[in-house]
Order: sequence, then structure tokens, then C-alpha cells
Amino acid sequence: MSVTAAKGFTAAGIAAGIKENGNPDLALVVNTGPRRAAAGVFTSNRVKAAPVLWSEQVLESGQVSAVVLNSGGANACTGPKGFQDTHATAEKVAEVLGRGAIEVAVCSTGLIGVLLPMDKLLPGVEKAAASLSEHGGEKAAIAIKTTDTVHKTSVVTKDGWTVGGMAKGAGMLAPGLATMLVVLTTDADLDNDVLDKALRAATRTTFDRVDSDGCMSTNDTVLLLASGAAGVTPEYEEFAEAVRQVCDDLGQQLIRDAEGASKDIKVEVINAATEDDAVEVGRSIARNNLLKCAIHGEDPNWGRVLSAIGTTQAVFEPDRLNVAINGVWVCKNGGVGEDREKVDMRYREVHIVADLAAGSETATIWTNDLTADYVHENSAYSS
Amino acid sequence: MSVTAAKGFTAAGIAAGIKENGNPDLALVVNTGPRRAAAGVFTSNRVKAAPVLWSEQVLESGQVSAVVLNSGGANACTGPKGFQDTHATAEKVAEVLGRGAIEVAVCSTGLIGVLLPMDKLLPGVEKAAASLSEHGGEKAAIAIKTTDTVHKTSVVTKDGWTVGGMAKGAGMLAPGLATMLVVLTTDADLDNDVLDKALRAATRTTFDRVDSDGCMSTNDTVLLLASGAAGVTPEYEEFAEAVRQVCDDLGQQLIRDAEGASKDIKVEVINAATEDDAVEVGRSIARNNLLKCAIHGEDPNWGRVLSAIGTTQAVFEPDRLNVAINGVWVCKNGGVGEDREKVDMRYREVHIVADLAAGSETATIWTNDLTADYVHENSAYSS
Repeated sequence: MSVTAAKGFTAAGIAAGIKENGNPDLALVVNTGPRRAAAGVFTSNRVKAAPVLWSEQVLESGQVSAVVLNSGGANACTGPKGFQDTHATAEKVAEVLGRGAIEVAVCSTGLIGVLLPMDKLLPGVEKAAASLSEHGGEKAAIAIKTTDTVHKTSVVTKDGWTVGGMAKGAGMLAPGLATMLVVLTTDADLDNDVLDKALRAATRTTFDRVDSDGCMSTNDTVLLLASGAAGVTPEYEEFAEAVRQVCDDLGQQLIRDAEGASKDIKVEVINAATEDDAVEVGRSIARNNLLKCAIHGEDPNWGRVLSAIGTTQAVFEPDRLNVAINGVWVCKNGGVGEDREKVDMRYREVHIVADLAAGSETATIWTNDLTADYVHENSAYSS
Repeated sequence: MSVTAAKGFTAAGIAAGIKENGNPDLALVVNTGPRRAAAGVFTSNRVKAAPVLWSEQVLESGQVSAVVLNSGGANACTGPKGFQDTHATAEKVAEVLGRGAIEVAVCSTGLIGVLLPMDKLLPGVEKAAASLSEHGGEKAAIAIKTTDTVHKTSVVTKDGWTVGGMAKGAGMLAPGLATMLVVLTTDADLDNDVLDKALRAATRTTFDRVDSDGCMSTNDTVLLLASGAAGVTPEYEEFAEAVRQVCDDLGQQLIRDAEGASKDIKVEVINAATEDDAVEVGRSIARNNLLKCAIHGEDPNWGRVLSAIGTTQAVFEPDRLNVAINGVWVCKNGGVGEDREKVDMRYREVHIVADLAAGSETATIWTNDLTADYVHENSAYSS
């Protein structure tokens, strides 16, 4: 299903030879119209990959005819040549589709600091274009995998219209955004301003709160394309909720497939004075390596939660903090609470609630545990 | 040597039975005068352990007669009872030494959220007092170890006066300060204002820039005690430099003994617009888990350095950044530089230079790699 679940889209995923192991590494998603509205959000890292710099320009017009995505190389920190390569890729897609290059978004993922093998990528674009299909969404989702063990897709179908999408991401998962490429499509008939509003609202509470390892990517891109092929214009609220659901589902899939992780940790901050406070505290907890190790060891070490909260600027009094792990309030009023032996941590999902007792705002951050497998996978990645 | 290298101090280290394994766990450092001036800096974590709350009050007078330190329990997040226990410990020390409790600083280290076994600690104070000696510095340094594999001491002797000290710390090493207890002593004849100024200047560029794992402690304490027993009042600059040297040496020892680490990483940021920029960038690099894994794998993955720099607010242009790893400029002008194969990473010490090309300020942050041993040690600590 994926990006071709909505009407008005074709897609393809092929092996262009960018990856040395011969796995699929090039995906193409084409909006066949009648409308070609689009919105995008990009990494907030100030070191941006060439395809991000290019696609930001493309999105300024609010119109995207196609997205070309490659795995096997991030084309980040590659200087002027890297940008020329991105431009050449867009030109090639434009040529084979008979559109303008400025309507072609480009996404890349893989190792930073390596130029892409353009002698393989450009012929790959022709090969991908030749295999475009209304059923190509699955293959496209597979072709953008890097260290992902599974491909990620999601679809929400409403009354006469659909939002679908694909995502890749397994490491460098942190906000603003979470190292990933995501393409969402819809056949709803909406203009780019509505798409932009719905996409920003959705990513703010989904992908932006997926913080697997605290490391922010140079390539993150989330695109939402609308073909209008369903001929239906849904109410904004209903559409925004559908986009949020697909983003939330894909974000959860990212967490479940995070490199080396053995636990998925939901950090829920409640009773904060402001939503910003809740997010700051949630991130601080989610990024505490000692806590992440403890969770890996199935150790409900709430002292590490408190020491993480204590590093923030949020409104709270230390002696009013409460912490629950998997439903057991192991910390009450900043001190020892219920018996920690009661905490059952055998399952993959772990739920931490931090009660700041300072207001009524809340936020949830998703993260993973820190494991020897994560260390192993990331100490051997580029070598 | 340690805290008894300077004249006018006695110390002891004994096993009080706080640690279940019978290892030494209680240290006592006594200033025998004639002067009892002191200064202290404490964790900036807002969740502060009871002994920190107590010792902050003690230091307000600028006078400390003794420091009692226990390992085997942090007495953090222990509520009013925890504070009462700290107070009772100070009272006991005061009683056996014939001083006032308000002149007794207390330090604790170990697991958060557990009350101390006062039935063992208080008799331990008597036992420690009975074994106080002018040669007790080494035993005191041993008694404050937790996961430390070695005890840490340092001494600088100048013309007629000395600064010496001991430190413990191996995990939760991060600024503000670096999870540790440090007691420094000097026989120089100086008042507490001078001690305070010298200590703050020294810790700002030493312990505060030791960032092994990004996790800030609830118990960090660095104390500097002056006995005046040498009868010498050195120039401020010379004294401050001696304190800085001892702090720097102890900080390096903390890094070299960090839990599970296989590499000591010196992150040097140069040509920053401001010192704050340099520190922010240095910390961002030092806390990047993906980079720390790469260094563990002896992989000069400079792309991860750039992605870490990109998350900061420092002044820089992405296409002017340069990065050297162990002397090889692997990144030039934001792109590929010298051949990464030239980087020799076989040794424990790794030197990363990040050139922001934005000014003339500099800062150095010390950190460690991220290893499976770190994960193992910290996933099993409290269980």
C-alpha cells in the first residue's frame, strides 16, 4: 500500500547499484495528478545535506510532481559537487517524466561525507521510471531502507479519500526531526497551505517526539503530496487527524525498529506548567544514557529519572516529583515510593510517567534503551 | 599523599559496613588548623542529595573543620529522613572531634533513593576518628571509591606550600559538575574568599569540562580546605594555578577510569566566536552517542562530528567547518578532506579538533567512547 494507497500516485523501488550489496536503493514516487500540491518539513540541523537544501527550494512553490529517494549515501557534507549531484538527479527525473526539475524533490540517506556514484544513480532513475506502477508503494518503501530491518508503511482510509505513507529510519533518531525519510501521499483535493498546516501539526507531536538516540540527522525530510484524484475535499480537522495517525503509526514503527534496541520506552510527562516544560523534561529523561542502560537491564532505577529531571529548567519542586514505571509509583514526593520489586519489566514496552505536580500540561516522548547491540552496530557502521 | 600532603590535615578511611561487600566506605578528613578556611562548589542539578543541601549551608560560613564522606549510598531522593541522617552524621563527627556540627561538611556517593544504614555509619565515624593520621590520605581516597577501579589523588608542591587532593568518580560524569566527590587541601595561609575564587576558576575549565556520559549527578561536591599550617601566603595567581593543576590532573584521572570506556577523547574546539560557543559545540560533540560508538570502533566518522555541530546555536558557516581526528584534517570546508585511512586510532587517547572558523576562542571538553562494557556496567548497577 504505502505511498500508492491513495489514488493519483505511482511508485517504484529498484536496485541501482548504489549499495555495494546489490539491495534495492532507489525509489521514485510520482504524483500523476490532477493536482500536485505538496508540503514538507526538514531537519533543523544547521548542517544540511545537499538534497535537503535542494528540496527546501522545491517546496517553496508548494508543488511537487515527483520524489526521488536513494539509500546507500546521504550526500551530506559533500560540498558544491554534492549539490550538483542532487540537481543532476532532479534534472534526470524531470527529463524522464517530462516535468520541470524544480518540481522534483530529492531525498538521500546513508553515510555522511561520501559522494554518490552518479554513474549508477542516473541510469537507476531511468530504470525506476520504467517500472513505475500504481502498486509500487511497497517496493519504494523497501528501496529506502538503510539499517532498517523492516520497511515501514501506513495507511488511513476515510470516506472516499486516503492518506498513506512510507518511512525509513533506525538510527540517528532524534527530534527536529528523527533521522528518517518519510513520504506521505493523499488523493484528497487540498491545496499546499492546508497540507503544510496539517503536516506541521502532525509532525510536531509525532516524529518530533521520537528520540531514539538523541542524535539529529543532516537529511531528515517529511513530504506530503496531494493528487486530488479522489475528487474529495475533507474537513481540515478530519484530514489533519488522518495525517497525524499515519505519522504516529510510522513514528512508532521507527521506534520498534531502532538499531540494537530491546525496549521501546514511552516517557509521559504529566502535570507540567507548560507543554514546553513537559517536552524538555521528557527529552531529558529520554536522553539519559544511564537510565537507558538501566531500562535495558530491566532495572526500575527511578533515581536516574529524577537526576535527569533535575537538569532541566522546567517548573517543579524536587520534593513534589512522582515517578511511575510500568504503573508502579516507585517515587513519591521526591523520595522512595512503592516497592520497586513490584515493577514488571519483562516486556518490550516500558512506560515511564513523570509527574511534575506543577500544572496540567502533558507531552509524550518515545525512546529506546541503550544496548551493547546499539554500540556494536554503530561502531562498525562506516568501516 | 592525597589530602594529607598539605600540613595541618589528618585523614582516615575505614570499612563501616555500609557496602555489603566489606570494602572501605567511610572517609574522614580533618583540618587541624590553625586556620579552617574553606570553599566549595556543588552540583547544578536541581535534584540535590541531602548531603549537598547540608554542605551548601556549611560552606556559607567559609569555615570547615572536617569532611565526612561515605560511599555505598548517595542519600539522594531520600526525603526529610535522608536530611536528618546527614545532620546526624555531621553531629556525630562534631561530637568526636569536639567541634560544631555546622563546621562539618558531608558527602555521599552511591545509589540514589536508598536510605543510609545509620546503625553502621555512626559507629563508623567513631572508628574513623580513632584512626585519623597525617598519613591517612591514601586510605581516605580508597574509602570513597564506588565503581572506580583505582583511587585518585594529586599533589602540587610549591615553595613552602602544597595543594593536594583526592577524587572519586567513574560514572554519571558530566558538567555542573562531573559525578564525583573531590576534597582538596592546602596548607597555604589564605582566607575563604581567595579559596572560593581560585576553586571556581579551576573547576570551570577542568571538572566542568569533563563530560564522560552526559549525565549530571545529584551529589557532586568539590571542597577546598586551607589549614594555614605552612605559614605562607602565596600570590593569588600562583595559588590558583596550583589548584587548577590539581583539578586538571584529578579530572583526567576520572576520564581515564570512566566506566567501561576504552577511549579517552579530547574534544578541542578552536576559532569559535566566543568561549560559550566553543563549550556548547564541544559538549554537543562529546555527547553524541553515534560518534562515541564510532570512536569505540576506531572509525574516524567525521560526519557525526558535523551533525553534532549542526545542532548547536554557535556562530559558524557549514561550508567553513574543519575537523581533524588525531592530526588528520578529515573534513575541510564542510566536506571531504584528507584521506580518512591516514587516521591512526589504535591508542586509548583520541584527539578531535573542531575548527569553527568564526573567531579566536577555544575550549576543550573531555569525554569517553560508548562501549558495550558501559552498557553492561550500568544496566546491572542497582540490581
